[in-house]
Amino acid sequence: MFFHRSELQYHVKPESPDPVFAKQVQELIGGQFGEMSVAMQYLFQGWSTRGNEKYRDLLMDTGTQELGHIEMLATLVARLLEGAPVYEQEKAAADPIVGAIMGGMNPQHAIVHGLGASPKDSNGVPWNAGYIVASGNLLADFRANVNAESQGRLQVARLYSMTDDKGVKDLFSFLIARDTMHQNQWLAAIKDLEAKEGPIVPSTVPPEWEAQEFSHILYVNPETSTADQLPWVSQPAPDGHPITVQKPEPLSERPILKPAPPEAHNTLPEEDLK
Amino acid sequence: MFFHRSELQYHVKPESPDPVFAKQVQELIGGQFGEMSVAMQYLFQGWSTRGNEKYRDLLMDTGTQELGHIEMLATLVARLLEGAPVYEQEKAAADPIVGAIMGGMNPQHAIVHGLGASPKDSNGVPWNAGYIVASGNLLADFRANVNAESQGRLQVARLYSMTDDKGVKDLFSFLIARDTMHQNQWLAAIKDLEAKEGPIVPSTVPPEWEAQEFSHILYVNPETSTADQLPWVSQPAPDGHPITVQKPEPLSERPILKPAPPEAHNTLPEEDLK
Amino acid sequence: MFFHRSELQYHVKPESPDPVFAKQVQELIGGQFGEMSVAMQYLFQGWSTRGNEKYRDLLMDTGTQELGHIEMLATLVARLLEGAPVYEQEKAAADPIVGAIMGGMNPQHAIVHGLGASPKDSNGVPWNAGYIVASGNLLADFRANVNAESQGRLQVARLYSMTDDKGVKDLFSFLIARDTMHQNQWLAAIKDLEAKEGPIVPSTVPPEWEAQEFSHILYVNPETSTADQLPWVSQPAPDGHPITVQKPEPLSERPILKPAPPEAHNTLPEEDLK
Amino acid sequence: MFFHRSELQYHVKPESPDPVFAKQVQELIGGQFGEMSVAMQYLFQGWSTRGNEKYRDLLMDTGTQELGHIEMLATLVARLLEGAPVYEQEKAAADPIVGAIMGGMNPQHAIVHGLGASPKDSNGVPWNAGYIVASGNLLADFRANVNAESQGRLQVARLYSMTDDKGVKDLFSFLIARDTMHQNQWLAAIKDLEAKEGPIVPSTVPPEWEAQEFSHILYVNPETSTADQLPWVSQPAPDGHPITVQKPEPLSERPILKPAPPEAHNTLPEEDLK
Amino acid sequence: MFFHRSELQYHVKPESPDPVFAKQVQELIGGQFGEMSVAMQYLFQGWSTRGNEKYRDLLMDTGTQELGHIEMLATLVARLLEGAPVYEQEKAAADPIVGAIMGGMNPQHAIVHGLGASPKDSNGVPWNAGYIVASGNLLADFRANVNAESQGRLQVARLYSMTDDKGVKDLFSFLIARDTMHQNQWLAAIKDLEAKEGPIVPSTVPPEWEAQEFSHILYVNPETSTADQLPWVSQPAPDGHPITVQKPEPLSERPILKPAPPEAHNTLPEEDLK
Amino acid sequence: MFFHRSELQYHVKPESPDPVFAKQVQELIGGQFGEMSVAMQYLFQGWSTRGNEKYRDLLMDTGTQELGHIEMLATLVARLLEGAPVYEQEKAAADPIVGAIMGGMNPQHAIVHGLGASPKDSNGVPWNAGYIVASGNLLADFRANVNAESQGRLQVARLYSMTDDKGVKDLFSFLIARDTMHQNQWLAAIKDLEAKEGPIVPSTVPPEWEAQEFSHILYVNPETSTADQLPWVSQPAPDGHPITVQKPEPLSERPILKPAPPEAHNTLPEEDLK
Repeated sequence: MFFHRSELQYHVKPESPDPVFAKQVQELIGGQFGEMSVAMQYLFQGWSTRGNEKYRDLLMDTGTQELGHIEMLATLVARLLEGAPVYEQEKAAADPIVGAIMGGMNPQHAIVHGLGASPKDSNGVPWNAGYIVASGNLLADFRANVNAESQGRLQVARLYSMTDDKGVKDLFSFLIARDTMHQNQWLAAIKDLEAKEGPIVPSTVPPEWEAQEFSHILYVNPETSTADQLPWVSQPAPDGHPITVQKPEPLSERPILKPAPPEAHNTLPEEDLK
Repeated sequence: MFFHRSELQYHVKPESPDPVFAKQVQELIGGQFGEMSVAMQYLFQGWSTRGNEKYRDLLMDTGTQELGHIEMLATLVARLLEGAPVYEQEKAAADPIVGAIMGGMNPQHAIVHGLGASPKDSNGVPWNAGYIVASGNLLADFRANVNAESQGRLQVARLYSMTDDKGVKDLFSFLIARDTMHQNQWLAAIKDLEAKEGPIVPSTVPPEWEAQEFSHILYVNPETSTADQLPWVSQPAPDGHPITVQKPEPLSERPILKPAPPEAHNTLPEEDLK
Repeated sequence: MFFHRSELQYHVKPESPDPVFAKQVQELIGGQFGEMSVAMQYLFQGWSTRGNEKYRDLLMDTGTQELGHIEMLATLVARLLEGAPVYEQEKAAADPIVGAIMGGMNPQHAIVHGLGASPKDSNGVPWNAGYIVASGNLLADFRANVNAESQGRLQVARLYSMTDDKGVKDLFSFLIARDTMHQNQWLAAIKDLEAKEGPIVPSTVPPEWEAQEFSHILYVNPETSTADQLPWVSQPAPDGHPITVQKPEPLSERPILKPAPPEAHNTLPEEDLK
Repeated sequence: MFFHRSELQYHVKPESPDPVFAKQVQELIGGQFGEMSVAMQYLFQGWSTRGNEKYRDLLMDTGTQELGHIEMLATLVARLLEGAPVYEQEKAAADPIVGAIMGGMNPQHAIVHGLGASPKDSNGVPWNAGYIVASGNLLADFRANVNAESQGRLQVARLYSMTDDKGVKDLFSFLIARDTMHQNQWLAAIKDLEAKEGPIVPSTVPPEWEAQEFSHILYVNPETSTADQLPWVSQPAPDGHPITVQKPEPLSERPILKPAPPEAHNTLPEEDLK
Repeated sequence: MFFHRSELQYHVKPESPDPVFAKQVQELIGGQFGEMSVAMQYLFQGWSTRGNEKYRDLLMDTGTQELGHIEMLATLVARLLEGAPVYEQEKAAADPIVGAIMGGMNPQHAIVHGLGASPKDSNGVPWNAGYIVASGNLLADFRANVNAESQGRLQVARLYSMTDDKGVKDLFSFLIARDTMHQNQWLAAIKDLEAKEGPIVPSTVPPEWEAQEFSHILYVNPETSTADQLPWVSQPAPDGHPITVQKPEPLSERPILKPAPPEAHNTLPEEDLK
Repeated sequence: MFFHRSELQYHVKPESPDPVFAKQVQELIGGQFGEMSVAMQYLFQGWSTRGNEKYRDLLMDTGTQELGHIEMLATLVARLLEGAPVYEQEKAAADPIVGAIMGGMNPQHAIVHGLGASPKDSNGVPWNAGYIVASGNLLADFRANVNAESQGRLQVARLYSMTDDKGVKDLFSFLIARDTMHQNQWLAAIKDLEAKEGPIVPSTVPPEWEAQEFSHILYVNPETSTADQLPWVSQPAPDGHPITVQKPEPLSERPILKPAPPEAHNTLPEEDLK
């Protein structure tokens, strides 16, 4: 069950309006790796956790914090839109500065949201749940989580260079720090589970389900690829087996499908068409 | 540049038709972690790689193989649909076996694709490029890749239990093996890059961009959460710093936004409404 | 800022597994008017509220409760999937009962989520933020909210008839009650704002922006439509003006567009084609 | 059945080309509350109406008019794109005015549509049917309709400020007037149905389906929320019952899910992992 | 401008309820080539037509008829859902016939739409405007149109075999006939435009924009492909030039991209990583 | 099975950086008719081909080439983004040239992809498989293919005018040439199949399935439409039958649907409401 307090987790005080930057900050709210994604991803993973209560709690605690991150970024967008000439379309043709703002801002901030944040990415594409991962296998999902925090911290770092606003940078420094912690925690959890289960997910596949003669072949096109020169290729794989390098070759024949039944109304086979 | 040979990489010879299973196999083609995703993800990462040609080649070699995996699964679906009563809707009300097939199959296999595979998931949702990751940061992206291969192998393992068809299981044993190799290779590549860059992505953020006092706090709700009992909490974090546990508390005040300009036609502030 | 406690807001104890019903319950989680929609809708409206702090708090309080509703329904789905033959595809062809389950369940509950809830609707379509409304105009948005709660209570009522499980009905009786309250609160808030602003949104449009001669015409096709017999047509409209009924007629001429420039490579105009 | 005449319902004569404004007008065509939404929403509601023929006719009459509104706005976009330098990308770097146009216009107007309107919103996101509502319950749906007309009129009002073009303003004044009428008609219809059915949708839920002890509680976080100070909280709710205010508290315990079956290949429970 | 009459264009009188078939008929309403697609495609093409008024009128006339086709199919779905046990989920586990219906029907017909049609395809995926084509080039678009009518007639023909209901077959015989006419009309229009413009779209590209040495090469992989044996390969191409067959070979070198700037925080180039 | 060589099929050497043009080029990668669409469309058609091996090979050969076209365009985007001020947001307000770049570029090129190509269109909407066509009927699908190549060549031609960069124009001249060939090949294949099957798809529909009295009527609104003046209306249709022109009229009556069952909780019929 969830509770809300009206205060923000951290300061959100941009120095100046900046509608073009407001558009770009949307990536951190409703983008593939925005805060909506990590919040929903951790909560759905937590709600599906079976038999690992401490990890369920870690997921719920972290997902709940991410809800507060959406809140801070939504507040940032709302404040970046305050006091800017966002309804001045008619001046845009004459004044290049206004024109650049009108052309570069998200039109929905003015038309749809009345200067509020949008649940969409920096191009205005709505967030969707196809972005999130919740498989019931914690090791698989924690790998998704460390990726999400890596992509998230990378995106904040890129946006950090794109502004001189000290208030914005202050908020970003908090987000960068939290993404450091979250990478740390998922990496530690992965190490914990790999020590118990081994590195290959899922650990519960019986060996006879696997065509093991193909489990450690690196297929490399010998004509132009240099991938076989990577240093780790000559070392044991993470699961302990040696890697071999092979040229990719077909192991089966050309597939010939049977004709479709008449009810399919497909094109008739070549011999019937003549 | 790409080339195609007509033979399949591996055998695709299901013993019997099974339209309901054909629907479920679609998850491996057009689902979030189906072969369309890994193929496109690795190719787009390869096309964006700057200054690491061996890794570019690894990405291109692996993405190209995944195209061949889509091909095998599309052939599997086409063959599972051969010879089954998929256009016998009118018998479904009377014969429960046919009814279960008609109710459980993907109607588009009959109506739209004429017994061919669909570029969609097991619920018929079209594959979309919002599933894939290509950031230009290889360590971040390889984390996405090991997640994708983990989710993929997990899904094949689940489907393996759901069929008794020896031909299907033979193909799945090949896919399980290849996902083992791909997990191995991305894990090895991650280890290689972490050794050079450290575990926190991106490694190039200057320390002054980070509010470091928040970089190693685990926020845990002390009322009901047990996350602080995880064994690794009392150990150094993967980046070497100690972790501290704190109760989450707001560090800022309630945000009061300024009224919108008249052009927004928002609800007036409370004091102006009266 | 948000907080989470591990306990559920209300009991979630289905008596028996039921994977087909689990699929249908997904509509209440990730459908257009599922709990993800109302949670995100109220939170984004709250984060954009300018100058009406009590309504901001109402939005945040209610949105936060809806997060707990997602949690209960996700738990319901997870429990409805426990102990059912969801990986028994191969038995489905022979046993019609198992066949109906395999055909009627959401395959992703087995393949993708490992018996956990999905952030999608009852057909497996991912939730997306295009469902939600946050305009900055509270009267407009409260109308969206009372609609959402009406559709939501309607859907729970329909699902209530579709199960005999007493545990499920107990949870649904709580959700029906809460949707009663939420309809009440948004209706009361609408009445409050309409009393101050009038019924037509936005209230701030100057009369000269409006072609007022068209503001109270009901266009009815006199050939076959009976809409003009509705009882309120002969009464004053909600904004106090009388309604008039007219046959729809064009008030302008056929639009003739200019030819495109050569760079468009459009089809040439008829006279240039000859 | 539908009929079309070549004339427009109202004048569409912008004074000057304006490709950046053309992009913004797209919101009124293919946005969440654009004319495609109201047209399709009313038609699908009409086609599903059972036993209320006058309301069916009202829905069909109004939906048909909205088709004509799409037509006028598509014509507006086509005319705003006539005579503007939309294929002059190469001049954009040198000439800031052209640059602002090229940067601010929808590139698909030039590349995809050859100076025609797009069935998408102001950010280029395709219209989709997830926006529309047709439940079979007229009171619920009329609440959706009055919301749609409120959001629609709000968006036209915002765009009205963003142009000085008298021809555009003339068309907008017609649309603002029609949205006034449509708000009036759905409000009147809601009043009609509420008088017969009561305010809570659906009216047909038996009291024993509802946990009535929760039907009139306003949950307010007493730490920071001021929602309980709203004036209507101390008055009877719209359905006549008094409202009580309570602090949100969990009424159930922490949910512990059973372990998944082996076929799920989920992470094993903590005790089995060691 | 549009007008509506309450009568249907053709009879829609299914003999019996059939909720599973109702789900499948949705493909013809909201699928990629359903009636929503052709209606919207022709209308948007019409609204963008510049300088070819007769073709504009053909597009508007045909698009308007397709609106009436949506109406008939929506009525068909509504009637197929009448009188069927669609809210009998609890009987489904015991009675395989009911189970097959519950498992095979679209759950949203019961839960969301209250026995009305849905603006979605046979898997419940919402119709979206990414399906439609309106380029401003009539020859290109008429090719899209003849494809749409071909796919549409093919789908109706497949569904025709899937029912024994005489009322449904009667409606389908009308739709099959109209798709014959529409294929005929677009084929005739294509022939008309090709006679004036030639077969290659757009006809207005100057020869110097085209690397003509590549305009008539058929690239065929000589190892396994038999495409060069197609009869027309040895004949002049439709634009009159001879076709030559070549093995695909790269004409350029391996692309080496420059390192990213520091602000991108991409992985450093290999030599800087060491 | 697929193979990759590291070299590009053709030169990709833009003279100068141009991030705004990079955004526009995305249409050719991930737009409705971009290279992702034709590649996936031809491959899925090939994988479903039954009994026409030469056409299967043509589809696979052509689809494989299109993968190489995605590669060239992804390289073009990556190079257009090199050396441009894409992280200089803070200068944008002061310098209109930089402002136009920041406003006109795709923000995800900077924030998400680190100067790499995106699998999305020119507005940043992700590519999705709802764009592609694979029906099992080759004549229908080849009509889709000639449309795709027509739209594709049209879009490249439009973009050709929008740049002065000789390197870009060189690549575009290759793409224009290849689209000429691909239009030629699908037109030749259509002619081949039409000669065997006739022009109306599918050719296998028995005459008694078709209400033939409606198969050659052109419905034209006599009030304002001029479509009946098109020259081919007075000639035999492509399938050899004469066309007749009629005014559209309803052939059936107003549909009255039965009331919904109580479990639907729809609005009651008018007579029960009173």
